[in-house]
Amino acid sequence: MSHEQLASIKINQDRLMNDIHTTCEWGKGEPWGDGPTETGMSRLSLSDTDKQARDWFAETTTSLGCKVHTDQMGNQFAIRPGLSNDEPPTYAGSHLDTQPTGGRYDGILGVTAAVEMLRTLNDNWIETNYPVGVVNWTNEEGARFPMSMVSSGVWAGSVPLEKAHNLKSVIPSNDTATMKSELERIGYLGKVPASYKSTPMAAHFELHIEQGPILEAENRRVGVVQGVQAYKWFTVTVRGRDSHTGATSFQHRADALLTSAKMILASHKIATRHKALASTGILGLKPGSTNTVPGFVKFSLDIRAPLDETVEAVEKDCRQAFEAIAAGENAYGVNDLCHPSDRQCSVEWVTDFVSPATHFHDDCISCVQQAGSDLCGGGEVNGKGIGAWGKLMTSGAGHDSVYTNKHCPTSMIFVPCRDGVSHNPAEYSSPDQCGDGANVLMGAVLRYDRLRGQR
Amino acid sequence: MSHEQLASIKINQDRLMNDIHTTCEWGKGEPWGDGPTETGMSRLSLSDTDKQARDWFAETTTSLGCKVHTDQMGNQFAIRPGLSNDEPPTYAGSHLDTQPTGGRYDGILGVTAAVEMLRTLNDNWIETNYPVGVVNWTNEEGARFPMSMVSSGVWAGSVPLEKAHNLKSVIPSNDTATMKSELERIGYLGKVPASYKSTPMAAHFELHIEQGPILEAENRRVGVVQGVQAYKWFTVTVRGRDSHTGATSFQHRADALLTSAKMILASHKIATRHKALASTGILGLKPGSTNTVPGFVKFSLDIRAPLDETVEAVEKDCRQAFEAIAAGENAYGVNDLCHPSDRQCSVEWVTDFVSPATHFHDDCISCVQQAGSDLCGGGEVNGKGIGAWGKLMTSGAGHDSVYTNKHCPTSMIFVPCRDGVSHNPAEYSSPDQCGDGANVLMGAVLRYDRLRGQR
Repeated sequence: MSHEQLASIKINQDRLMNDIHTTCEWGKGEPWGDGPTETGMSRLSLSDTDKQARDWFAETTTSLGCKVHTDQMGNQFAIRPGLSNDEPPTYAGSHLDTQPTGGRYDGILGVTAAVEMLRTLNDNWIETNYPVGVVNWTNEEGARFPMSMVSSGVWAGSVPLEKAHNLKSVIPSNDTATMKSELERIGYLGKVPASYKSTPMAAHFELHIEQGPILEAENRRVGVVQGVQAYKWFTVTVRGRDSHTGATSFQHRADALLTSAKMILASHKIATRHKALASTGILGLKPGSTNTVPGFVKFSLDIRAPLDETVEAVEKDCRQAFEAIAAGENAYGVNDLCHPSDRQCSVEWVTDFVSPATHFHDDCISCVQQAGSDLCGGGEVNGKGIGAWGKLMTSGAGHDSVYTNKHCPTSMIFVPCRDGVSHNPAEYSSPDQCGDGANVLMGAVLRYDRLRGQR
Repeated sequence: MSHEQLASIKINQDRLMNDIHTTCEWGKGEPWGDGPTETGMSRLSLSDTDKQARDWFAETTTSLGCKVHTDQMGNQFAIRPGLSNDEPPTYAGSHLDTQPTGGRYDGILGVTAAVEMLRTLNDNWIETNYPVGVVNWTNEEGARFPMSMVSSGVWAGSVPLEKAHNLKSVIPSNDTATMKSELERIGYLGKVPASYKSTPMAAHFELHIEQGPILEAENRRVGVVQGVQAYKWFTVTVRGRDSHTGATSFQHRADALLTSAKMILASHKIATRHKALASTGILGLKPGSTNTVPGFVKFSLDIRAPLDETVEAVEKDCRQAFEAIAAGENAYGVNDLCHPSDRQCSVEWVTDFVSPATHFHDDCISCVQQAGSDLCGGGEVNGKGIGAWGKLMTSGAGHDSVYTNKHCPTSMIFVPCRDGVSHNPAEYSSPDQCGDGANVLMGAVLRYDRLRGQR
């Protein structure tokens, strides 16, 4: 296909939106508006409604001429043949499961847009050089079986199959179910090994809502995703001493909450200095009484940055600062104007999770950028810059593409979502925004296929 | 009695400790050491074990020659006649109920020391000018029926009887019981109206452990309590926006927890500047996930100072500072080195409880100070200063003496407790410290009786 042909083919936006909202009848969640499609989603992985969505995926892609297979993790792969079928397909895909109080776009947009790509290729009688595939990854959210991206992780060889199969449902009413038992129950325990060896990919492209507010705030249509941030998760425990709020002067306190407040503030200052992120999303304390100074606080700390070295540097600075703050010193000005205490707290760190930085493949990034530029009417592509239509981004959240990137060239496409909100019923991207994403996804896949043909 | 006679009479410390530990068999709590008396206490008000302690109180004081009556709140009053019985007694007393995980001294020391005073007066054939009374106030802790000092509050006319009688037990296994039903059940619903009119007091002296670390830290034997701090309790709600910790830059966050951390720090700085106290003992957040910036935080704020004006000033400054912090401004330097956010949080205050400052009576304070000075071998009393043996203090915690002070001259005596710990099984004051307190309590009552005789 010529560049002009590539730039002229467009997906059918109405048909895409119809696929999104039709499939979202299965697992419909809380309403956020009055319209029939203004609800969130509650489609937990391997539930009865997830089975309905899976059945739709298999039937639809089969009817579109694909060969469909399911692996031992329930990952579904639909393959549309190309002119030459000796090499692996170029894939597009994402996931159909949602958070318990999730929305209609996170994951779902990526799969439905890939299916719409198949429809558009058929409509236009397009024959690709190599096969094109669509994938639906199982339990990406980790909301029912508590490990995010577990099934692409097994595919990549990063998570052992048995460990994944034995993950237990965290839904209290159904907590004896395992991934394996639920895969069997709904008929999606495939026989194909869950492995990049059995289901190889030439490339993996994933369209996703941004889940952040940057594209909307900067009025850009497409995010060209260069990689995924590194992150490390910690649990920090601060121990002081319970004491009476009325009878204990500041000097004699070892206030674990005040100390933790200083630490949270210091972590923010340190991350700001390193152009990184540091966040606390969980905080618990004991004993929890208005007139008792808490002697015990436990909080989460989530450090992220595009580079592993930056995460390490933020962690190192935070460890030093927290020690100093627990000892009553004035790290990062947190003790300015405070009354000095003659009692100290202790601080203890536990590392819960480490995810190194992911750098996507230049060829895939370039295909996404060219597709975006063609769709949106130009702007610099081959130089270092990018037109006003788009933005080169690093994903803050993890995605299945982190695992595919270990075994094949990968990139992602982001589209804006309202107020940056996701994992929430009110998550929303407009039909135009969804259409933009689907066009760039298809454009990137076709450009990558052309690139393969040119080698 | 002459000053020399007064100074020479001493309580029997062994007998006092025996009373403490014998009565603490009823409602024995968790051990903190290996010794038989090294346990805490769990004697909730109007429980079966509280009834045992009450029976001991009535039987012991009756056998010591007192007339004992119980009012409608179960407050027990034991009166030892004086030479003239036309005027009300000078009282000593405190409470026999404890926290669910309390210790052996909070309240208990004050009542047993008052009983030991009766024993010592009898041993020494002392006839006071006016009657001397001992009081055991009901449910001072507010741990079972959720209103602290409720029964002295009814006695003072500050809490309506019906409201108090209808308070429900907060113990989940027994949550239909009310104060009235439990008073009836254990046989302590007296017929005498719970009122300062029916049971008048000429004065009220209360011995108590400090519940703070100051006396121990400064190596002083006796605290001469001049009053009780004013305090106000608030619930502060901070609303921001849930967002993804990885996908949301600092600029686009409205982080309710980071904002609350800044507020807690600012409240500490403001209180430090006003020589007051500000404390947060409760903090809850939503949604509570490592990778979600919390959009909702609720925390308690407890502001205390010796003067009402100071509490008001701290509240006013905190309100201004919290508004500014929620709006992203740099009040009290909390935003130094922080990344500015273009999103704001909102802040909302609810006032939960207001307790104005209590100023005890000069005559009672003077009697406590003289008794302390005589016991400990001197130091300035009549001038402004006080010897190294003691310290003029303002109680940080509330006590029944706050209510008695509304209708009769009142003061309190504090003795050190180990590490300032109370409301904890490990609460501890040594036999010598308990003995000091009991001697000062008796000395203050006798001096006040002499003062009344001199009028």
